[in-house]
Amino acid sequence: MASRTGGAPPATPYTSEFEERRGALAGGLAERKLDAYLVAFSPNLRYLTGFTGSNGNLLVTPEESILFTDPRYAIQAHAESAGCRIRIAKGPLTPEVAAAIAKLGLKRIGYEPARMSCDAYESLKSRLPMGASLQAAGGRIEELRMVKSPAEAERIRRSVRTNSRAFERAVARLRPGMKERDFAAELEYGMRRLGAEKPAFETIVAGGVRSALPHAQPSAAPLAAGDLVVVDMGAFEQGYASDMTRMLFLGSPGAKVKRTYKAVLEAQLAALDAVRAGVLAGRVDRAARATLEGHGLGRAFVHSTGHGLGLEIHEPPRIGKRDKTRLRAGMAITIEPGVYLEGWGGIRIEDTVLVTENGCETLTPTSKELRAV
Amino acid sequence: MASRTGGAPPATPYTSEFEERRGALAGGLAERKLDAYLVAFSPNLRYLTGFTGSNGNLLVTPEESILFTDPRYAIQAHAESAGCRIRIAKGPLTPEVAAAIAKLGLKRIGYEPARMSCDAYESLKSRLPMGASLQAAGGRIEELRMVKSPAEAERIRRSVRTNSRAFERAVARLRPGMKERDFAAELEYGMRRLGAEKPAFETIVAGGVRSALPHAQPSAAPLAAGDLVVVDMGAFEQGYASDMTRMLFLGSPGAKVKRTYKAVLEAQLAALDAVRAGVLAGRVDRAARATLEGHGLGRAFVHSTGHGLGLEIHEPPRIGKRDKTRLRAGMAITIEPGVYLEGWGGIRIEDTVLVTENGCETLTPTSKELRAV
Repeated sequence: MASRTGGAPPATPYTSEFEERRGALAGGLAERKLDAYLVAFSPNLRYLTGFTGSNGNLLVTPEESILFTDPRYAIQAHAESAGCRIRIAKGPLTPEVAAAIAKLGLKRIGYEPARMSCDAYESLKSRLPMGASLQAAGGRIEELRMVKSPAEAERIRRSVRTNSRAFERAVARLRPGMKERDFAAELEYGMRRLGAEKPAFETIVAGGVRSALPHAQPSAAPLAAGDLVVVDMGAFEQGYASDMTRMLFLGSPGAKVKRTYKAVLEAQLAALDAVRAGVLAGRVDRAARATLEGHGLGRAFVHSTGHGLGLEIHEPPRIGKRDKTRLRAGMAITIEPGVYLEGWGGIRIEDTVLVTENGCETLTPTSKELRAV
Repeated sequence: MASRTGGAPPATPYTSEFEERRGALAGGLAERKLDAYLVAFSPNLRYLTGFTGSNGNLLVTPEESILFTDPRYAIQAHAESAGCRIRIAKGPLTPEVAAAIAKLGLKRIGYEPARMSCDAYESLKSRLPMGASLQAAGGRIEELRMVKSPAEAERIRRSVRTNSRAFERAVARLRPGMKERDFAAELEYGMRRLGAEKPAFETIVAGGVRSALPHAQPSAAPLAAGDLVVVDMGAFEQGYASDMTRMLFLGSPGAKVKRTYKAVLEAQLAALDAVRAGVLAGRVDRAARATLEGHGLGRAFVHSTGHGLGLEIHEPPRIGKRDKTRLRAGMAITIEPGVYLEGWGGIRIEDTVLVTENGCETLTPTSKELRAV
């Protein structure tokens, strides 16, 4: 059987990129008076090691990084995470992590309080050797992850391209009477056939009044002539997310649809226009919000203007009213104002963009016309 | 536009079923000296209220249940969770939950320590009124969820059927040279077209030596003549999971493949045979393990024999070596022994079954022959 050789998992960045990231994390330990950093959250693990298994712990010290996982991922861990010591635990990982902490004589262990459950915390704490303690030290990896390397930006670019191509293919097959969920299936099938691993979230396809649900799940309802349809879709490709929302109209849109669409597009362009390195995230949100308020639609805009994306579909920074993050070149964010009118419908327009020194690069190539099908 | 009416989300059980479950939870409060139970974990929320949004908190008291969510899910919460009071929070949910606890004069609040992050715990604790406290009270809802109602069993049955039909459709299209990930895309597309909302997990398609990775992600490698191929797939339909693993062989399998396959099948049948109400989960695992040990394959079986499934793809009980759960009629579990030989390949066979008083009902209709394609 099996004449094929090893077969590495989907291409990963160079080992050196992971080593650099672990180096950056380890470099910040002394300043926080920490001996080590414990990472259990999958996207953070992947960012630091390339490991894509669902069960792993990583202990980063200034001298070395140890990846703990279970036997299901033994082969994979060695293939993906060169440069880490690999420990395969037969049972739960926590006792092995505690044993390593004891053996290495580590005292102050940083952990991620937003990513660790109360149970996991108590379980580890109770196993620590005398003198060792857990120190809340969250957000540091998310901070590193906010600004994308050129290799990461390229992956997001590719994911965005795949996503937009899948949209075009599926729209070409859309006919009135097609069920929301069948159209969603076409969109997701296209992503995968074009190179994505999976959808980045549950694809939203919602027609008619259901478009007023900002997070509608595709239903068995048919998309009918006269329907305004919201399509919110994203792909994960080589681990990186894309995110796009476009509006379709089955037939000829009337005056209210056109007018509302124009207002949302104006808000989206105003927000895009506000994006550049050095600007506060809250200011970008306000640009969109002020535009919609000017159209009397401020109260219909029930969410924030956007969010960062990368190894997660939602990650910092948040582009919301009160957000104080200062945008930096290399951040990947969405810009997606929308309005939702219960009993009528909703309209949202969303691009994925890369923040640059002087503005932003809109990665999403799909036209922003309200598309009549 | 929108001549269609409201458009409820995918059919949900009767409101009364949710009320019964909340009643069962509330009924256990006094015994634990609790005034209320706080639920934030999505599958538990859905189980108790029908709510399918991604952001929610539920406070269950003997008198009422209050569902907290954000404006994105306002319309949806009212549609899905009749019988609950709905509170829409403009910002984070925690301050609203704390305010409700204060207003209702609740003192001892049960929470789920395995489901709450350290951050969330601290954030809520710091906002509680004087005299109120959080009490670890995990696992109660998971315990209720273990035994499925007839309506739940029917949903799992349907999910299993959809999954198997999607498998047959895709296998009919399989040709040597097809990429692993394209075959996975066909499988998932089929599930959706046949009525599933989404895959229950990342579909595994791994050929040749890659089949030795118990959790391989489908790669761009082509499925080649002479390959042993593992397919592990599941669907979520009306919220409920299915899970199945089958083996394909591209061409004519040789003696070692046949022999190993037979050993795994024997182990799977032995485990199925051991399933019935009253038996310890560990005994089912041992039935499979002993069989493989008898074939000299004990060390190649690197995971447990199965797991419960329902609103989650993995939920209690675990069917592992040391598991003390006594099986009960109505539990839905997988039976999936496997062997993994690095550099050669892996073989796993998995069914979804329903525990009955005298044995089990194997829900998976797909033949367990090693299928030559």
